[in-house]
Amino acid sequence: MEPATTHVQQDSLLDNLAIVLVRPKIPENIGATARIAYNMGINTLLLVKESAPPREPMAKMATHKAAHLIDDITCFPTLAEALEDYNIVIGTTARRGRQRFVHQTPREMVTKLIPMLQGNRAAIVFGPEDTGLTNDDLKHCHMRSAIPTADFSSLNLAQAVAIHCYELYHGIIHAPKDMAPSPTLATSFELESMYSYMEESLLKIDFMEESGRHHWMGNIRHFLARLKLTSKDANIVRGVCKKFLQHRESTVK
Amino acid sequence: MEPATTHVQQDSLLDNLAIVLVRPKIPENIGATARIAYNMGINTLLLVKESAPPREPMAKMATHKAAHLIDDITCFPTLAEALEDYNIVIGTTARRGRQRFVHQTPREMVTKLIPMLQGNRAAIVFGPEDTGLTNDDLKHCHMRSAIPTADFSSLNLAQAVAIHCYELYHGIIHAPKDMAPSPTLATSFELESMYSYMEESLLKIDFMEESGRHHWMGNIRHFLARLKLTSKDANIVRGVCKKFLQHRESTVK
Repeated sequence: MEPATTHVQQDSLLDNLAIVLVRPKIPENIGATARIAYNMGINTLLLVKESAPPREPMAKMATHKAAHLIDDITCFPTLAEALEDYNIVIGTTARRGRQRFVHQTPREMVTKLIPMLQGNRAAIVFGPEDTGLTNDDLKHCHMRSAIPTADFSSLNLAQAVAIHCYELYHGIIHAPKDMAPSPTLATSFELESMYSYMEESLLKIDFMEESGRHHWMGNIRHFLARLKLTSKDANIVRGVCKKFLQHRESTVK
Repeated sequence: MEPATTHVQQDSLLDNLAIVLVRPKIPENIGATARIAYNMGINTLLLVKESAPPREPMAKMATHKAAHLIDDITCFPTLAEALEDYNIVIGTTARRGRQRFVHQTPREMVTKLIPMLQGNRAAIVFGPEDTGLTNDDLKHCHMRSAIPTADFSSLNLAQAVAIHCYELYHGIIHAPKDMAPSPTLATSFELESMYSYMEESLLKIDFMEESGRHHWMGNIRHFLARLKLTSKDANIVRGVCKKFLQHRESTVK
Protein backbone atom coordinates (compact mmCIF):
# COMPACT_ATOMS: atom_id res chain seq x y z
CA MET A 1 0.00 0.00 0.00
CA GLU A 2 1.19 3.49 -0.77
CA PRO A 3 1.46 5.84 2.20
CA ALA A 4 -1.65 7.93 2.77
CA THR A 5 0.30 11.16 2.44
CA THR A 6 0.80 10.51 -1.25
CA HIS A 7 -2.92 10.47 -1.84
CA VAL A 8 -3.40 13.55 0.28
CA GLN A 9 -0.86 15.37 -1.84
CA GLN A 10 -2.32 14.09 -5.10
CA ASP A 11 -5.80 15.15 -4.04
CA SER A 12 -4.60 18.60 -3.03
CA LEU A 13 -2.84 19.08 -6.37
CA LEU A 14 -5.91 17.87 -8.28
CA ASP A 15 -8.09 20.23 -6.23
CA ASN A 16 -5.99 23.12 -7.51
CA LEU A 17 -6.96 22.42 -11.12
CA ALA A 18 -9.92 23.70 -13.09
CA ILE A 19 -11.01 23.09 -16.65
CA VAL A 20 -12.40 26.22 -18.33
CA LEU A 21 -14.46 25.94 -21.51
CA VAL A 22 -14.77 29.22 -23.37
CA ARG A 23 -18.01 29.63 -25.33
CA PRO A 24 -18.47 25.93 -26.14
CA LYS A 25 -21.17 25.43 -28.79
CA ILE A 26 -22.12 21.79 -28.24
CA PRO A 27 -23.56 20.88 -24.80
CA GLU A 28 -22.51 17.25 -25.27
CA ASN A 29 -18.88 18.42 -25.24
CA ILE A 30 -19.40 19.98 -21.84
CA GLY A 31 -20.79 16.67 -20.60
CA ALA A 32 -17.89 14.71 -22.08
CA THR A 33 -15.50 17.19 -20.44
CA ALA A 34 -17.15 16.62 -17.04
CA ARG A 35 -16.84 12.86 -17.46
CA ILE A 36 -13.14 12.82 -18.35
CA ALA A 37 -12.30 15.48 -15.75
CA TYR A 38 -13.95 13.44 -13.00
CA ASN A 39 -12.23 10.29 -14.22
CA MET A 40 -8.92 12.08 -13.88
CA GLY A 41 -9.70 13.44 -10.41
CA ILE A 42 -10.43 17.02 -11.51
CA ASN A 43 -13.65 18.37 -10.00
CA THR A 44 -13.90 21.98 -11.12
CA LEU A 45 -15.44 22.93 -14.43
CA LEU A 46 -16.01 26.57 -15.37
CA LEU A 47 -17.86 27.91 -18.39
CA VAL A 48 -17.46 31.23 -20.10
CA LYS A 49 -20.96 31.65 -21.47
CA GLU A 50 -23.89 34.02 -21.05
CA SER A 51 -26.06 31.31 -19.53
CA ALA A 52 -25.87 27.62 -18.70
CA PRO A 53 -26.70 25.35 -21.66
CA PRO A 54 -29.58 22.85 -21.36
CA ARG A 55 -28.80 20.29 -18.65
CA GLU A 56 -30.09 17.15 -20.39
CA PRO A 57 -27.50 16.74 -23.23
CA MET A 58 -24.68 17.71 -20.86
CA ALA A 59 -25.74 15.27 -18.12
CA LYS A 60 -26.24 12.45 -20.60
CA MET A 61 -22.63 12.65 -21.80
CA ALA A 62 -21.31 13.24 -18.29
CA THR A 63 -22.92 9.97 -17.11
CA HIS A 64 -24.50 9.61 -13.69
CA LYS A 65 -21.21 9.53 -11.78
CA ALA A 66 -19.95 12.87 -13.07
CA ALA A 67 -23.37 14.57 -13.06
CA HIS A 68 -22.45 16.61 -9.98
CA LEU A 69 -19.81 18.44 -12.01
CA ILE A 70 -22.58 19.52 -14.37
CA ASP A 71 -24.76 20.62 -11.45
CA ASP A 72 -21.85 22.55 -9.93
CA ILE A 73 -20.82 24.32 -13.13
CA THR A 74 -20.30 28.04 -12.74
CA CYS A 75 -20.92 30.33 -15.72
CA PHE A 76 -18.99 33.57 -16.17
CA PRO A 77 -19.75 36.27 -18.72
CA THR A 78 -16.06 36.82 -19.49
CA LEU A 79 -12.87 34.79 -19.35
CA ALA A 80 -11.27 37.45 -17.12
CA GLU A 81 -13.97 36.90 -14.50
CA ALA A 82 -13.69 33.11 -14.71
CA LEU A 83 -9.94 33.33 -14.09
CA GLU A 84 -9.93 35.86 -11.23
CA ASP A 85 -8.96 33.35 -8.52
CA TYR A 86 -6.40 31.46 -10.59
CA ASN A 87 -2.65 31.98 -10.36
CA ILE A 88 -1.62 30.04 -13.43
CA VAL A 89 -3.54 30.05 -16.69
CA ILE A 90 -2.78 27.65 -19.52
CA GLY A 91 -4.26 28.30 -22.94
CA THR A 92 -4.71 25.36 -25.27
CA THR A 93 -4.36 25.91 -28.97
CA ALA A 94 -3.98 23.96 -32.16
CA ARG A 95 -2.41 26.86 -33.97
CA ARG A 96 1.28 26.93 -34.60
CA GLY A 97 3.66 29.55 -35.87
CA ARG A 98 3.06 33.27 -36.01
CA GLN A 99 2.65 33.41 -32.24
CA ARG A 100 5.12 34.98 -29.91
CA PHE A 101 4.58 32.39 -27.21
CA VAL A 102 6.48 29.19 -27.60
CA HIS A 103 4.10 26.27 -27.87
CA GLN A 104 4.66 23.36 -25.59
CA THR A 105 3.19 19.91 -25.77
CA PRO A 106 0.75 18.99 -22.97
CA ARG A 107 3.49 16.83 -21.46
CA GLU A 108 6.02 19.67 -21.40
CA MET A 109 3.40 22.01 -19.97
CA VAL A 110 2.51 19.54 -17.20
CA THR A 111 6.18 19.05 -16.34
CA LYS A 112 6.49 22.80 -15.74
CA LEU A 113 3.12 23.17 -14.07
CA ILE A 114 3.33 20.47 -11.41
CA PRO A 115 6.16 21.97 -9.31
CA MET A 116 4.10 25.19 -9.14
CA LEU A 117 0.81 23.50 -8.31
CA GLN A 118 1.37 23.21 -4.57
CA GLY A 119 0.09 26.59 -3.45
CA ASN A 120 -1.27 27.81 -6.78
CA ARG A 121 -4.54 27.28 -8.61
CA ALA A 122 -4.27 26.53 -12.30
CA ALA A 123 -6.88 26.86 -15.02
CA ILE A 124 -6.60 24.97 -18.30
CA VAL A 125 -8.55 26.92 -20.89
CA PHE A 126 -10.15 25.51 -24.06
CA GLY A 127 -11.72 27.59 -26.83
CA PRO A 128 -14.86 26.97 -28.91
CA GLU A 129 -15.05 23.90 -31.15
CA ASP A 130 -14.76 25.78 -34.43
CA THR A 131 -12.37 28.63 -33.78
CA GLY A 132 -10.36 27.87 -30.64
CA LEU A 133 -9.21 30.63 -28.30
CA THR A 134 -8.96 34.15 -29.70
CA ASN A 135 -5.85 36.28 -29.28
CA ASP A 136 -7.82 38.25 -26.72
CA ASP A 137 -8.50 35.07 -24.73
CA LEU A 138 -4.86 34.06 -25.03
CA LYS A 139 -3.58 37.29 -23.51
CA HIS A 140 -4.81 35.98 -20.13
CA CYS A 141 -2.69 32.85 -20.47
CA HIS A 142 0.74 32.41 -18.91
CA MET A 143 1.57 29.24 -20.80
CA ARG A 144 0.30 27.58 -23.91
CA SER A 145 -0.16 23.96 -24.72
CA ALA A 146 -0.63 22.46 -28.19
CA ILE A 147 -1.23 18.77 -28.79
CA PRO A 148 1.26 17.51 -31.37
CA THR A 149 -0.52 16.21 -34.45
CA ALA A 150 0.28 15.02 -37.96
CA ASP A 151 -0.32 17.50 -40.77
CA PHE A 152 -4.07 17.56 -40.24
CA SER A 153 -4.57 19.54 -37.08
CA SER A 154 -8.17 19.84 -36.00
CA LEU A 155 -9.02 18.10 -32.79
CA ASN A 156 -12.40 17.39 -31.32
CA LEU A 157 -12.84 19.56 -28.20
CA ALA A 158 -13.76 16.67 -25.88
CA GLN A 159 -10.76 14.68 -27.09
CA ALA A 160 -8.38 17.62 -26.61
CA VAL A 161 -9.73 17.97 -23.06
CA ALA A 162 -9.26 14.21 -22.55
CA ILE A 163 -5.60 14.32 -23.60
CA HIS A 164 -4.89 17.25 -21.30
CA CYS A 165 -6.73 15.75 -18.29
CA TYR A 166 -4.88 12.49 -18.86
CA GLU A 167 -1.48 14.24 -18.92
CA LEU A 168 -2.35 16.24 -15.79
CA TYR A 169 -3.46 13.18 -13.85
CA HIS A 170 -0.52 11.14 -15.12
CA GLY A 171 1.89 13.89 -14.09
CA ILE A 172 0.36 14.30 -10.65
CA ILE A 173 0.34 10.60 -9.75
CA HIS A 174 3.99 10.42 -10.78
CA ALA A 175 5.00 13.63 -9.00
CA PRO A 176 7.74 13.36 -6.36
CA LYS A 177 6.28 12.36 -2.99
CA ASP A 178 7.51 15.32 -0.99
CA MET A 179 7.31 18.38 -3.17
CA ALA A 180 8.07 21.67 -1.48
CA PRO A 181 5.30 24.26 -1.69
CA SER A 182 6.07 26.75 -4.45
CA PRO A 183 5.70 30.51 -4.02
CA THR A 184 2.11 31.66 -4.45
CA LEU A 185 1.85 33.60 -7.67
CA ALA A 186 -0.34 36.62 -8.28
CA THR A 187 -3.91 35.72 -9.20
CA SER A 188 -5.27 36.60 -12.59
CA PHE A 189 -7.35 39.29 -10.87
CA GLU A 190 -4.24 40.91 -9.35
CA LEU A 191 -2.38 40.70 -12.65
CA GLU A 192 -5.23 42.20 -14.66
CA SER A 193 -5.44 45.10 -12.22
CA MET A 194 -1.68 45.62 -12.53
CA TYR A 195 -1.83 45.50 -16.35
CA SER A 196 -4.67 47.95 -16.38
CA TYR A 197 -2.70 50.57 -14.38
CA MET A 198 0.41 49.81 -16.39
CA GLU A 199 -1.37 50.30 -19.67
CA GLU A 200 -2.80 53.62 -18.59
CA SER A 201 0.63 54.77 -17.40
CA LEU A 202 2.41 53.72 -20.58
CA LEU A 203 -0.17 55.58 -22.66
CA LYS A 204 0.21 58.69 -20.55
CA ILE A 205 3.99 58.82 -20.96
CA ASP A 206 3.63 58.19 -24.69
CA PHE A 207 5.59 54.98 -24.49
CA MET A 208 2.98 53.68 -26.87
CA GLU A 209 0.23 55.16 -28.94
CA GLU A 210 -3.42 54.26 -28.57
CA SER A 211 -3.25 52.26 -31.83
CA GLY A 212 -0.31 50.21 -30.63
CA ARG A 213 -1.58 49.36 -27.16
CA HIS A 214 -2.59 45.79 -27.97
CA HIS A 215 0.72 45.10 -29.63
CA TRP A 216 2.84 46.52 -26.81
CA MET A 217 0.74 45.20 -23.96
CA GLY A 218 0.93 41.76 -25.62
CA ASN A 219 4.72 41.99 -25.57
CA ILE A 220 4.74 43.14 -21.97
CA ARG A 221 2.34 40.40 -20.88
CA HIS A 222 4.55 37.85 -22.58
CA PHE A 223 7.63 39.22 -20.87
CA LEU A 224 6.03 39.42 -17.41
CA ALA A 225 4.40 35.98 -17.70
CA ARG A 226 7.89 34.49 -17.84
CA LEU A 227 8.82 36.24 -14.58
CA LYS A 228 6.12 34.43 -12.57
CA LEU A 229 5.13 37.42 -10.48
CA THR A 230 3.95 36.85 -6.91
CA SER A 231 1.06 38.80 -5.40
CA LYS A 232 3.58 41.08 -3.74
CA ASP A 233 5.42 41.72 -7.02
CA ALA A 234 2.19 42.54 -8.83
CA ASN A 235 1.06 44.85 -6.05
CA ILE A 236 4.38 46.73 -6.13
CA VAL A 237 4.21 47.27 -9.89
CA ARG A 238 0.56 48.21 -9.63
CA GLY A 239 1.34 50.58 -6.76
CA VAL A 240 4.11 52.33 -8.69
CA CYS A 241 1.88 52.84 -11.72
CA LYS A 242 -0.99 54.08 -9.56
CA LYS A 243 1.26 56.54 -7.75
CA PHE A 244 2.66 57.77 -11.04
CA LEU A 245 -0.85 58.37 -12.35
CA GLN A 246 -1.87 60.22 -9.16
CA HIS A 247 1.30 62.28 -9.26
CA ARG A 248 0.76 63.14 -12.91
CA GLU A 249 -2.87 64.02 -12.25
CA SER A 250 -1.79 66.47 -9.55
CA THR A 251 1.02 68.09 -11.54
CA VAL A 252 0.02 68.15 -15.21
CA LYS A 253 -2.42 70.79 -16.25
CA MET B 1 14.73 21.42 -40.86
CA GLU B 2 14.68 17.84 -39.75
CA PRO B 3 16.22 15.34 -42.14
CA ALA B 4 13.70 13.72 -44.50
CA THR B 5 14.61 10.25 -43.28
CA THR B 6 13.01 10.99 -39.93
CA HIS B 7 9.67 11.63 -41.57
CA VAL B 8 10.04 8.54 -43.72
CA GLN B 9 10.59 6.46 -40.62
CA GLN B 10 7.75 8.11 -38.71
CA ASP B 11 5.40 7.55 -41.62
CA SER B 12 6.40 3.91 -41.93
CA LEU B 13 5.86 3.34 -38.21
CA LEU B 14 2.48 5.08 -38.32
CA ASP B 15 1.54 2.98 -41.36
CA ASN B 16 2.06 -0.13 -39.25
CA LEU B 17 -0.67 0.89 -36.82
CA ALA B 18 -4.38 0.16 -36.93
CA ILE B 19 -7.20 1.08 -34.60
CA VAL B 20 -9.73 -1.71 -34.16
CA LEU B 21 -13.16 -0.98 -32.71
CA VAL B 22 -14.98 -4.09 -31.52
CA ARG B 23 -18.79 -3.91 -31.77
CA PRO B 24 -19.04 -0.14 -31.19
CA LYS B 25 -22.66 0.88 -30.55
CA ILE B 26 -22.57 4.59 -31.36
CA PRO B 27 -21.65 5.53 -34.95
CA GLU B 28 -20.52 8.99 -33.80
CA ASN B 29 -17.75 7.31 -31.80
CA ILE B 30 -16.46 5.67 -34.98
CA GLY B 31 -16.37 9.10 -36.63
CA ALA B 32 -14.59 10.66 -33.67
CA THR B 33 -12.09 7.79 -33.77
CA ALA B 34 -11.41 8.43 -37.47
CA ARG B 35 -10.83 12.10 -36.77
CA ILE B 36 -8.34 11.64 -33.94
CA ALA B 37 -6.58 8.76 -35.73
CA TYR B 38 -6.05 10.89 -38.82
CA ASN B 39 -4.86 13.81 -36.70
CA MET B 40 -2.28 11.51 -35.16
CA GLY B 41 -1.13 10.13 -38.52
CA ILE B 42 -2.89 6.76 -38.21
CA ASN B 43 -4.83 5.83 -41.33
CA THR B 44 -6.21 2.36 -40.73
CA LEU B 45 -9.49 1.81 -38.94
CA LEU B 46 -11.03 -1.66 -38.66
CA LEU B 47 -14.44 -2.57 -37.30
CA VAL B 48 -15.59 -5.83 -35.82
CA LYS B 49 -19.26 -5.64 -36.71
CA GLU B 50 -21.74 -7.57 -38.83
CA SER B 51 -22.25 -4.64 -41.17
CA ALA B 52 -21.07 -1.07 -41.57
CA PRO B 53 -23.06 1.45 -39.51
CA PRO B 54 -24.86 4.34 -41.28
CA ARG B 55 -22.28 6.61 -42.94
CA GLU B 56 -23.84 9.98 -42.08
CA PRO B 57 -23.30 10.15 -38.28
CA MET B 58 -19.81 8.66 -38.67
CA ALA B 59 -18.77 11.09 -41.41
CA LYS B 60 -20.16 14.07 -39.52
CA MET B 61 -17.94 13.39 -36.50
CA ALA B 62 -14.97 12.44 -38.67
CA THR B 63 -15.12 15.85 -40.39
CA HIS B 64 -14.38 16.28 -44.08
CA LYS B 65 -10.63 15.79 -43.77
CA ALA B 66 -10.83 12.35 -42.14
CA ALA B 67 -13.84 11.19 -44.19
CA HIS B 68 -11.66 8.89 -46.29
CA LEU B 69 -10.95 6.79 -43.20
CA ILE B 70 -14.70 6.25 -42.89
CA ASP B 71 -14.96 5.34 -46.57
CA ASP B 72 -12.03 2.94 -46.28
CA ILE B 73 -13.31 1.19 -43.14
CA THR B 74 -13.22 -2.59 -43.34
CA CYS B 75 -15.76 -4.62 -41.37
CA PHE B 76 -14.93 -8.08 -40.04
CA PRO B 77 -17.42 -10.50 -38.52
CA THR B 78 -14.96 -11.59 -35.81
CA LEU B 79 -11.99 -10.06 -34.02
CA ALA B 80 -9.83 -13.05 -35.07
CA GLU B 81 -10.44 -12.21 -38.73
CA ALA B 82 -9.76 -8.50 -38.21
CA LEU B 83 -6.41 -9.31 -36.61
CA GLU B 84 -5.16 -11.95 -39.06
CA ASP B 85 -2.47 -9.74 -40.62
CA TYR B 86 -1.29 -8.17 -37.36
CA ASN B 87 1.81 -9.24 -35.46
CA ILE B 88 1.18 -7.33 -32.26
CA VAL B 89 -2.22 -6.91 -30.66
CA ILE B 90 -2.86 -4.52 -27.80
CA GLY B 91 -6.09 -4.79 -25.86
CA THR B 92 -7.33 -1.70 -24.06
CA THR B 93 -9.25 -2.12 -20.85
CA ALA B 94 -10.48 -0.09 -17.92
CA ARG B 95 -10.70 -3.11 -15.69
CA ARG B 96 -8.06 -3.70 -13.09
CA GLY B 97 -7.25 -6.62 -10.84
CA ARG B 98 -8.36 -10.21 -11.23
CA GLN B 99 -6.55 -10.46 -14.57
CA ARG B 100 -3.46 -12.47 -15.16
CA PHE B 101 -1.99 -9.94 -17.55
CA VAL B 102 -0.16 -7.09 -16.01
CA HIS B 103 -1.83 -3.81 -16.96
CA GLN B 104 0.34 -1.11 -18.37
CA THR B 105 -0.43 2.54 -18.90
CA PRO B 106 -0.67 3.67 -22.54
CA ARG B 107 2.73 5.30 -22.11
CA GLU B 108 4.39 2.13 -20.85
CA MET B 109 2.73 0.15 -23.64
CA VAL B 110 3.95 2.59 -26.29
CA THR B 111 7.49 2.47 -24.88
CA LYS B 112 7.52 -1.30 -25.38
CA LEU B 113 5.68 -1.23 -28.69
CA ILE B 114 7.77 1.26 -30.63
CA PRO B 115 11.03 -0.75 -30.82
CA MET B 116 8.98 -3.61 -32.30
CA LEU B 117 7.04 -1.49 -34.75
CA GLN B 118 9.67 -1.45 -37.50
CA GLY B 119 8.75 -4.66 -39.31
CA ASN B 120 5.57 -5.49 -37.40
CA ARG B 121 1.98 -4.39 -37.74
CA ALA B 122 0.22 -3.52 -34.52
CA ALA B 123 -3.49 -3.33 -33.78
CA ILE B 124 -4.85 -1.36 -30.84
CA VAL B 125 -8.20 -2.87 -29.91
CA PHE B 126 -11.07 -1.10 -28.14
CA GLY B 127 -14.25 -2.76 -26.88
CA PRO B 128 -17.87 -1.59 -26.93
CA GLU B 129 -18.84 1.58 -25.05
CA ASP B 130 -20.76 -0.17 -22.28
CA THR B 131 -18.88 -3.38 -21.59
CA GLY B 132 -15.36 -3.09 -22.98
CA LEU B 133 -13.49 -6.08 -24.39
CA THR B 134 -14.62 -9.52 -23.27
CA ASN B 135 -12.19 -12.12 -21.95
CA ASP B 136 -12.63 -13.90 -25.26
CA ASP B 137 -11.57 -10.73 -27.14
CA LEU B 138 -8.63 -10.28 -24.78
CA LYS B 139 -7.22 -13.73 -25.44
CA HIS B 140 -6.10 -12.41 -28.85
CA CYS B 141 -4.10 -9.62 -27.22
CA HIS B 142 -0.38 -9.78 -26.51
CA MET B 143 -0.30 -6.68 -24.36
CA ARG B 144 -2.85 -4.70 -22.43
CA SER B 145 -3.15 -1.02 -21.85
CA ALA B 146 -5.27 0.70 -19.20
CA ILE B 147 -5.55 4.45 -18.87
CA PRO B 148 -4.82 5.44 -15.27
CA THR B 149 -7.81 7.13 -13.69
CA ALA B 150 -8.99 8.35 -10.31
CA ASP B 151 -11.46 6.13 -8.45
CA PHE B 152 -14.18 6.64 -11.02
CA SER B 153 -13.08 4.60 -13.98
CA SER B 154 -15.41 4.79 -16.94
CA LEU B 155 -14.02 6.49 -19.99
CA ASN B 156 -15.82 7.63 -23.09
CA LEU B 157 -14.73 5.40 -25.99
CA ALA B 158 -13.72 8.27 -28.29
CA GLN B 159 -11.67 9.84 -25.49
CA ALA B 160 -9.92 6.56 -24.66
CA VAL B 161 -9.05 6.26 -28.36
CA ALA B 162 -7.81 9.86 -28.34
CA ILE B 163 -5.47 9.26 -25.40
CA HIS B 164 -4.02 6.15 -27.03
CA CYS B 165 -3.57 7.76 -30.46
CA TYR B 166 -1.89 10.74 -28.79
CA GLU B 167 0.54 8.50 -26.89
CA LEU B 168 1.31 6.50 -30.05
CA TYR B 169 1.99 9.60 -32.13
CA HIS B 170 3.96 11.25 -29.33
CA GLY B 171 6.07 8.10 -28.93
CA ILE B 172 6.73 7.77 -32.65
CA ILE B 173 7.79 11.37 -33.21
CA HIS B 174 10.18 11.05 -30.28
CA ALA B 175 11.52 7.64 -31.33
CA PRO B 176 15.29 7.37 -31.92
CA LYS B 177 16.17 8.41 -35.47
CA ASP B 178 17.87 5.21 -36.53
CA MET B 179 15.97 2.33 -35.01
CA ALA B 180 17.06 -1.11 -36.15
CA PRO B 181 14.30 -3.23 -37.68
CA SER B 182 12.99 -5.68 -35.10
CA PRO B 183 12.37 -9.35 -35.87
CA THR B 184 9.06 -9.93 -37.59
CA LEU B 185 6.72 -11.65 -35.19
CA ALA B 186 4.14 -14.26 -36.08
CA THR B 187 0.87 -12.80 -37.30
CA SER B 188 -2.28 -13.32 -35.33
CA PHE B 189 -3.39 -15.76 -38.05
CA GLU B 190 -0.25 -17.88 -37.62
CA LEU B 191 -0.58 -17.79 -33.84
CA GLU B 192 -4.25 -18.78 -33.87
CA SER B 193 -3.48 -21.71 -36.14
CA MET B 194 -0.68 -22.76 -33.78
CA TYR B 195 -2.94 -22.45 -30.71
CA SER B 196 -5.62 -24.47 -32.41
CA TYR B 197 -3.28 -27.44 -33.07
CA MET B 198 -1.77 -27.06 -29.63
CA GLU B 199 -5.16 -27.11 -27.95
CA GLU B 200 -6.18 -30.25 -29.82
CA SER B 201 -2.90 -31.95 -28.90
CA LEU B 202 -3.12 -31.02 -25.23
CA LEU B 203 -6.66 -32.40 -25.06
CA LYS B 204 -5.59 -35.62 -26.73
CA ILE B 205 -2.78 -36.27 -24.27
CA ASP B 206 -5.12 -35.42 -21.36
CA PHE B 207 -2.92 -32.53 -20.27
CA MET B 208 -6.23 -30.75 -19.70
CA GLU B 209 -9.86 -31.75 -19.66
CA GLU B 210 -12.46 -30.35 -22.00
CA SER B 211 -13.90 -28.27 -19.13
CA GLY B 212 -10.53 -26.71 -18.34
CA ARG B 213 -9.43 -25.84 -21.88
CA HIS B 214 -10.19 -22.10 -21.61
CA HIS B 215 -8.36 -21.83 -18.34
CA TRP B 216 -5.26 -23.69 -19.51
CA MET B 217 -5.14 -22.20 -22.98
CA GLY B 218 -5.42 -18.79 -21.36
CA ASN B 219 -2.35 -19.55 -19.26
CA ILE B 220 -0.46 -20.86 -22.26
CA ARG B 221 -1.37 -17.84 -24.39
CA HIS B 222 -0.19 -15.57 -21.62
CA PHE B 223 3.08 -17.45 -21.34
CA LEU B 224 3.72 -17.57 -25.11
CA ALA B 225 2.75 -13.91 -25.63
CA ARG B 226 5.71 -12.99 -23.44
CA LEU B 227 8.07 -15.01 -25.68
CA LYS B 228 7.28 -12.90 -28.76
CA LEU B 229 7.22 -15.81 -31.21
CA THR B 230 8.36 -15.22 -34.77
CA SER B 231 6.58 -16.79 -37.76
CA LYS B 232 9.24 -19.48 -37.80
CA ASP B 233 8.77 -20.23 -34.09
CA ALA B 234 5.00 -20.47 -34.47
CA ASN B 235 5.35 -22.74 -37.51
CA ILE B 236 7.71 -25.07 -35.64
CA VAL B 237 5.36 -25.39 -32.67
CA ARG B 238 2.40 -25.82 -34.99
CA GLY B 239 4.31 -28.41 -37.03
CA VAL B 240 5.21 -30.46 -33.95
CA CYS B 241 1.60 -30.46 -32.75
CA LYS B 242 0.34 -31.41 -36.21
CA LYS B 243 2.84 -34.24 -36.53
CA PHE B 244 1.92 -35.51 -33.11
CA LEU B 245 -1.76 -35.54 -34.05
CA GLN B 246 -1.04 -37.37 -37.33
CA HIS B 247 1.19 -39.83 -35.54
CA ARG B 248 -1.46 -40.44 -32.91
CA GLU B 249 -4.15 -40.83 -35.53
CA SER B 250 -2.11 -43.52 -37.25
CA THR B 251 -1.14 -45.43 -34.11
CA VAL B 252 -4.02 -45.17 -31.63
CA LYS B 253 -6.98 -47.39 -32.27
